[in-house]
This record gives sequence, structure tokens and C-alpha cells, in this order.
Amino acid sequence: MPALSKKGISMPESPIRKLVPYADEATKKGKKIYYLNIGQPDIETPQKALDAVKNNDLTILSYSPSQGFESYREKLAQYYAKSGLSINKEEMIVTTGGSEALLFAMGCITDPGDEVIIPEPFYANYNGFATASGVKVKAVQGKIEDNFALPPISEFEKLITPKTKAILVCNPGNPTGYLYTKDEINQLADLAIKHDLFILADEVYREFAYDGAVHHSIMSVEKLKNHAIMIDSVSKRYSMCGARIGCLASKNKEFMNTAMKFAQARLSPPTFAQIAAEAATETPDEYFNEVIDEYVLRRNTLIEGLKEIEGTKIAVPKGAFYCTVELPINDAEDFAKWLLSDFDLNGETIMVAPAGGFYSTEGAGKNQIRIAYVLNIESLKKAIEILKKAIEVYPNK
Amino acid sequence: MPALSKKGISMPESPIRKLVPYADEATKKGKKIYYLNIGQPDIETPQKALDAVKNNDLTILSYSPSQGFESYREKLAQYYAKSGLSINKEEMIVTTGGSEALLFAMGCITDPGDEVIIPEPFYANYNGFATASGVKVKAVQGKIEDNFALPPISEFEKLITPKTKAILVCNPGNPTGYLYTKDEINQLADLAIKHDLFILADEVYREFAYDGAVHHSIMSVEKLKNHAIMIDSVSKRYSMCGARIGCLASKNKEFMNTAMKFAQARLSPPTFAQIAAEAATETPDEYFNEVIDEYVLRRNTLIEGLKEIEGTKIAVPKGAFYCTVELPINDAEDFAKWLLSDFDLNGETIMVAPAGGFYSTEGAGKNQIRIAYVLNIESLKKAIEILKKAIEVYPNK
Repeated sequence: MPALSKKGISMPESPIRKLVPYADEATKKGKKIYYLNIGQPDIETPQKALDAVKNNDLTILSYSPSQGFESYREKLAQYYAKSGLSINKEEMIVTTGGSEALLFAMGCITDPGDEVIIPEPFYANYNGFATASGVKVKAVQGKIEDNFALPPISEFEKLITPKTKAILVCNPGNPTGYLYTKDEINQLADLAIKHDLFILADEVYREFAYDGAVHHSIMSVEKLKNHAIMIDSVSKRYSMCGARIGCLASKNKEFMNTAMKFAQARLSPPTFAQIAAEAATETPDEYFNEVIDEYVLRRNTLIEGLKEIEGTKIAVPKGAFYCTVELPINDAEDFAKWLLSDFDLNGETIMVAPAGGFYSTEGAGKNQIRIAYVLNIESLKKAIEILKKAIEVYPNK
Repeated sequence: MPALSKKGISMPESPIRKLVPYADEATKKGKKIYYLNIGQPDIETPQKALDAVKNNDLTILSYSPSQGFESYREKLAQYYAKSGLSINKEEMIVTTGGSEALLFAMGCITDPGDEVIIPEPFYANYNGFATASGVKVKAVQGKIEDNFALPPISEFEKLITPKTKAILVCNPGNPTGYLYTKDEINQLADLAIKHDLFILADEVYREFAYDGAVHHSIMSVEKLKNHAIMIDSVSKRYSMCGARIGCLASKNKEFMNTAMKFAQARLSPPTFAQIAAEAATETPDEYFNEVIDEYVLRRNTLIEGLKEIEGTKIAVPKGAFYCTVELPINDAEDFAKWLLSDFDLNGETIMVAPAGGFYSTEGAGKNQIRIAYVLNIESLKKAIEILKKAIEVYPNK
């Protein structure tokens, strides 16, 4: 049998996927599971987006331009302009999800053996994309005590080597829910310019900023013209994760020309989904207002509930819809499995994401979990009650 | 300004994209262009596939499973069974186009610096995927005189080194139109087993086999259980290139488990497109019969017309919808530009793909073009007439 590649063998498994067999088993046994483990919102996709696809009149489902439909890119430019960002249609490539945007960016700026610095905890699939690109992740650890704010710049500088090509941040953060302040974005900008590094900003949760806080995009920093690369996606913004439409944006022409070669090699992003995404740009502000009110309510409910559980440390989220919380347990992965296999409260249990998989430092975050507050208030309340009772009786503390 | 990667800089540009500015200029001047340069069929997508999307009743466009919808994989298994292939739903991953299937396969079996052997001319984007994966392409040259049949196995063996991980074939071939015989597939199988290499077979044109010839899938070779990897796509089969739905299939469990990690990192293939692809599996055989009759008519019309042009050498296609032809000219790229910039017949001209970009050997195929016979008979006849006249007056022969 031919051997697989080292790359293939070392591709990390998603920290959540490991739990799927336990969840399947629990379901088989008739347990009801509240899924707090994945960022699949229960919010309805805007009707306009769904209708645009239902009402399409294509007779030949042909390739779209590799860069994405021009009409969609024009509307995206208008969408960004609403938040004060000037990104024109030539400064963006429509991608198959934010995932592909990140892969293109990695391909353009890194060679095998290069390094990217990421504040941890971070979105677990960054590890997968780094491995697929042969890139080494260097992590700067954030602290749960300060809600995973940007670690001191000196910590980043300690890790910079000639192989460092970029700093990658997720803003607002998954799994932290942290929203970078203007000052933090400026600190990152100065760092990037001082060491001539790219800044990759994953801004797919850009609309989800709470308590009146403003999202500061990397694209808003004038002096980062040649250094800033934005990753975006419609998945969370319009609750259309299944569309698989993202966007790669930069004002660096050389970068964009190179990214276009990656885009051309894979021909085009999906056509139906672009039709939906284009229509979604016309979603009225009320949609977001309502969605944000709902998430704030959920977050508040979650935080209040978690505070009632003795021994927790909570990183209070200012954005996105995740909360990382430290529990009075030893091993969150064991706890997550136990919740599915051995525990129930009146036939119900919860599925959570062990946070260890969001760290690249071995052993970090071992007693933390990530909760995605993507359930309605009633379900969320039940889920918190289940968590509380579970911690009371969990044997491996 | 931060430097781009060597990988990014060396990403090849598509041989066709180079011509786009010339085509745009010609269109601006009011010239009508017959596009023989890309494999975008004019055949209508099956109505069932389009209707399934129009009639979907999703309210939340959520992630699909990373492996693709189970219901779709079940129907795909039934589809393959119709051609005698036993591929079960666990032996396949639904991908975003054939492109992603190839990228996943490359990731699973190659590390940077590894080599893949491909008979040339080959689909130009293989170069892009190889570059993106850090893989070196070694080419074995086919001969136009024998319609680009499989080159002698000894030619492959000459190129095998410890770094060789796979042989990649496209069957039927783009840009050759060549359909491998059962004997040729067996020769490849023996080679793969002898040297313990993977065989990657791009079979996206599997339905397009003419003159009563049968397509022999790599998946039909029992002894290749652990060596065979199939790349497939609905793009050409159902004229739905814009769906971006492909399939990666193998009976090698270790390979599939590894490919699943790549699939999980990018979350899921597009949902709407999977709905279309699933419905498309119910396309009645008559659809293919009609389509194939049409392509055979086009191919015959093209070949007859090309034979009328003095000095041509034609690789007569037995499948797909491409024809590679040698012209009595020096430089096909110059000729293709000249056709757009300096020539017209009653205000009309043609766009063709210079075949040099389908070879990895420098200078090979320089006087060849690839013609995609994806136009209706009337347009095709006009296009051939234009080609004939153009060659008569083209100055750089």
C-alpha cells in the first residue's frame, strides 16, 4: 500500500469531531442533546437571499468569473462602505467560504516551513489550514482573566524570526468572543509595519459587536495598505453557513494578482450561493438589530447562568457568539465525553467543545470549554441548568 | 512591503486567461467572437436539477456534513453502480468541484518536493494545484500522431524516483479527448502496483465516450483497491459547471480518513449545489444519449472541417469535448492573439486555447491549439470557416 504524506498524517482532527461518535451513541439511546458545540446559528437566513435562489431563471448553470460575479462584488463594496470601509470591487475575490480565502492567503504569502503567529485560543481549523500549507503556527497565549484581550506586543516580538510571514487574528474572536479595541488594532498595525509582516484578519463575525462597541476592521488602517489582508464570509452574517461564500480582500495589488492565480486554478466560486449572497447584501439594518438584540440576550443569560456555577472563570464576550469558560474540572475533553455518555438530566444532556483544541500550546486550556450561544433562550436556560448539575456530580474534578 | 511566497510567485497563469484582455478589446471593437477556448458547454442543465433548487424549502441555509449529504452520496453510489462500479457512500467525499477533490488528494499523498507523473498534454490547472501543493510535475509526452494514446510504460518508469507518489491521468482527456482502453488502464494498474504508487484518475468526462466505446474507470480495477483515487464532478456531466460539486472516491480507508480531515477543516461543500447535484442523479439516460449524439455530430463536423485545412494534424477525440490540433503555424499563442486583435471574417473571429499551456515541457505543443467543441453546429461551422481563412492569411507561418 502506498504511503500517505507526512502532511496528510499530521492534519489535525477537529476537536469537536472526536465527540461525534459519543453524541451519535447518546442520540441512539434516546437522549436529547442541546448542541452548544458548533457555530451553526438557529437564526433564519434572510428571506430575500432564499427567494433570490428560488426565483433564479438560469437554464445553464455555468461557471461564474473566478473573482466572483461583478454585480456581487459591487454590492459587497457598498456593504463595506456602510461601515466606513473603502474596498472596491477589484480589491476583493469571492471565495468558497472564509476557509478558501484563508487558504489562498496562506498560499500567496507562505512557503513550507514559514511561520504565522496567532494569539491563542484560536479557531481550531487555522491549524488545519496551516498544516495543509506546510506552515508552522506560533502561539501567543491570551488570558481568560482579561477576556482574552490582545497579549502584549512584546510577546509577539519574542516569536518573530526571519521565517515569520504574518500575524493572524480573528476579530471578533472565535472561541474568545473578544473584540479588539482601536488601540489594539493600532498596536498590531505598528508591529506589522515595524517587522514588515502581513496582518491576516478573520472578520467573519464583524456584525456581531455588542454593548454599543464598534468593530475596527484591519482594512480601516490607512498605513496598512500593503500589509492588511481581510478574510470575510456570509456564513455567520446572514446565517447562511451552507452557502460557502467568503471574500478575500486587500489593497495590496501584487497580493491580489497572486491570489487571482489561485482563484483561477479552481475556476469559480459556487453560482447559486453567490446569487443568495448578492441578495443578502440588501438585508435591512433591522435584521441585524434584531439578531444582535437576540444574541445579547443570550449572552447575558449565559453569563448570568455560568456565574451561578461555583468555580467558573468566564471570558465575557463582546462579540461573535462564543464564550470560553474555565470549569472546576481537570480535563474538559473527558468531561465533554462524559456529558454525552454517562450523564443526563431528565433524559437531556449537552454537547460542548473542549477548548484544548483551540490552543496550539500542548496542555493549555485543558479545563476550559467553548460554548456557542446559538440556541434560543429557553433551550439555553435548560442547557445551563444541565451544565450546572453535571459539574456537581462529575466525578473527575 | 512584505514579500510574497515563492509558491505564490510561481503559481502559473492559466494559458487562456492571458488572452482575455485581447478578447475584451476585440469585443469593444464590435467583433463577434466564437469561443472555442473553454469547456463551458452550451447544453442546458437538466430541469430536475434546476427545479430542485427552485423548490427547496430551507429556512436556515446551514452547514451540510463535511463528507456531503448522506442522501446525495447514496444516490451517487447508485449512479456509479449503473456503470458497474461498486463505490459505497463511505468511500466518497463530496467536494467543491473536481478541483477541491484533486487538492485534497494531493494533500493526502504528497509533501513539498514530491513528484507526480502526468502524461502531457494535460489539463493546465494540474500545474496550479501541483504548485499550490509544492509538488513537481514530471511529464511523459503523448503523440498527436496516435491521438495522444497512453505513452509506453517504459517512459513512465524512466521518471520514477523515490519522490514519485502518483501517476495522474485524465480519462477521457482534456485537452486530448483520448479515452484509455481497458488494456491501457491495466498497464497503468500494473505500473502502480509494481512501484507502489497511487493512481489519480480525473474522470469528470466519464459520460462522454463516443462511437460505442466504453469508459474504463480506475475504480473498476479490483487489485487497485489501495492505489486508486478517483476525481469526479457534476460540472460537465450535467452541464452544471457553476454548481461546484465534485467527488473524491477511493477504497483505501486510510486515504479516505485522511481526506476527511481536509474536508472537515473547510467545513462543508455548498448546500444549494448539492441539492441540484442530488436531483441531477435522476437524469434519465435519454438526456445523455441526446447530449452524446450532439457532441458526436459536433466532433464529426469539427474533424471534417479541420481536415479541409491544409497542414493540420488532428488528434481525433473519442471522448470529452476537446480536440487538440496542430496547425501550419509557428506559435499558437501569437496566432490566438492575432485572431482576436488583427483578424476578422465579416466582423467575426474565434478564440482558441494555445496548447503550449497544456504541456509542462518547455516549447512542446507550440504549434497546437485546443478546440472545445461546445458550440452548436451552426456556430461551429462558422468558427471552422473563420479558422480556415485565418490560417490562409496569417503572416507568421
